[in-house]
Amino acid sequence: MDIHMLDTYAKSLIKNAAFDIKTSLSSELIIESKSEANDLVTNIDKETEQFFIEHIKTDFPGHRIFGEEGFGDDIKDLKGYVWLLDPIDGTTNFIHQKQNFAISLGIYKDGIGILGYIYNVMEDTMLSGALNGGAYLDDMRLPKLQASSVEESVIGINARWVVPNRYVHHEGMVNLLKIVRGTRSLGSAAIEISYVVTGKLDAYTSMQLSPWDIAGGMVIAKEVGAIVTNLAFEHLELLDADSFIVSRPGLHEQLLTDYIKIK
Amino acid sequence: MDIHMLDTYAKSLIKNAAFDIKTSLSSELIIESKSEANDLVTNIDKETEQFFIEHIKTDFPGHRIFGEEGFGDDIKDLKGYVWLLDPIDGTTNFIHQKQNFAISLGIYKDGIGILGYIYNVMEDTMLSGALNGGAYLDDMRLPKLQASSVEESVIGINARWVVPNRYVHHEGMVNLLKIVRGTRSLGSAAIEISYVVTGKLDAYTSMQLSPWDIAGGMVIAKEVGAIVTNLAFEHLELLDADSFIVSRPGLHEQLLTDYIKIK
Repeated sequence: MDIHMLDTYAKSLIKNAAFDIKTSLSSELIIESKSEANDLVTNIDKETEQFFIEHIKTDFPGHRIFGEEGFGDDIKDLKGYVWLLDPIDGTTNFIHQKQNFAISLGIYKDGIGILGYIYNVMEDTMLSGALNGGAYLDDMRLPKLQASSVEESVIGINARWVVPNRYVHHEGMVNLLKIVRGTRSLGSAAIEISYVVTGKLDAYTSMQLSPWDIAGGMVIAKEVGAIVTNLAFEHLELLDADSFIVSRPGLHEQLLTDYIKIK
Repeated sequence: MDIHMLDTYAKSLIKNAAFDIKTSLSSELIIESKSEANDLVTNIDKETEQFFIEHIKTDFPGHRIFGEEGFGDDIKDLKGYVWLLDPIDGTTNFIHQKQNFAISLGIYKDGIGILGYIYNVMEDTMLSGALNGGAYLDDMRLPKLQASSVEESVIGINARWVVPNRYVHHEGMVNLLKIVRGTRSLGSAAIEISYVVTGKLDAYTSMQLSPWDIAGGMVIAKEVGAIVTNLAFEHLELLDADSFIVSRPGLHEQLLTDYIKIK
């Protein structure tokens, strides 16, 4: 498989899907709740995933698709080529803000991320990465991230993870809040990962993310030297939901050693 | 004073200042801390405030200026014409992200807000409002906000206000987190107010803001029917720092009655 051809194909598919999503903003959305009341999905999330699947299945018949909306394959392992897709990452932003949402896509071969994309639909910016090929914001190659201290850091973290919750000890999070320069919460994992990759945030953490939320971002993050693990300091398997942190080097270890303690 | 002339003048000044700020992004910033380690200021914040003051003092000699960086007048009351200015609202974003910051300006006559502006510098969008003249995003008139329920709301609130702090009882904030659809934190009061005004957030609250952070936004917010008070349900005097909430109608009362209790 020619990786350049695959890259060109994936970018083209993403841009076509984004065009359809933008067009849909002028018509009324059909909004449903999934497992939890606040886990929303729209007809556009579903149609976008189906658009990807139709094309990938036709053009790459041996490839499998692991998508948020469940129209893809029943994935139990990452053997062969697997496309991990969130058609709209940040659905609540898509509904409420009509901005700050992204198409997130990672292409993995035998469990190794070979291509990753985060396309900010309304900003029309393509963040991409290829294994050992560097990371790009559109056509601009991104520099490697430098280390930063926790005191000078701005961290992406939602308020729900600093109050008592079932995933982390909140006392450490409260201490973290006291020492950092600031926190932000943008409502889209993919966009928050893109902020870390481009140096706009120093770290981003969440207690519970799905493989399709992070698969694309992980490929890109590694190319700029960001460290990506779960909160137990382990490699992410990308088969089930897990905790997540992406961070500048140095800062990552300090955050997990001194502040963020999973239960 | 012809308000249309004043409006045209203010918009022109803001756009000129924004051009200089954008130009400055290519040179190195000089960053200092103010009262607290994380209360940052740059040479560009200062130069921008001085740019406004020079022009306003020359063209409107009787007007006074109440600005974040302190180069304006020593303001103890709002008699006559007072320009309340934050040259860069979201300085930490300006430094870290080079986006998500705004010029915030309110023009008040005898304590009444007559013109308000939030200019998102990197997005190049001008949100403006005139007393009884409506609110506009660039040339598009904004609709009145409709009521929303707390369960369907996305609220702008920083993580520091949901952990024990000296301003609000955090227990109510924890209950609020459990019931809302989501929370966001963008790091600029002016931009978060602009999100409420345009319907992208349903409310935004902070425990401690200064007059220049909110003066422009208040004029605009009132024109779309948003409710603006401090957290004791009182009118904001705009002479000292105070707590703050801007919200869709209906939601405002519910938030203050059931969840946000000041100490």
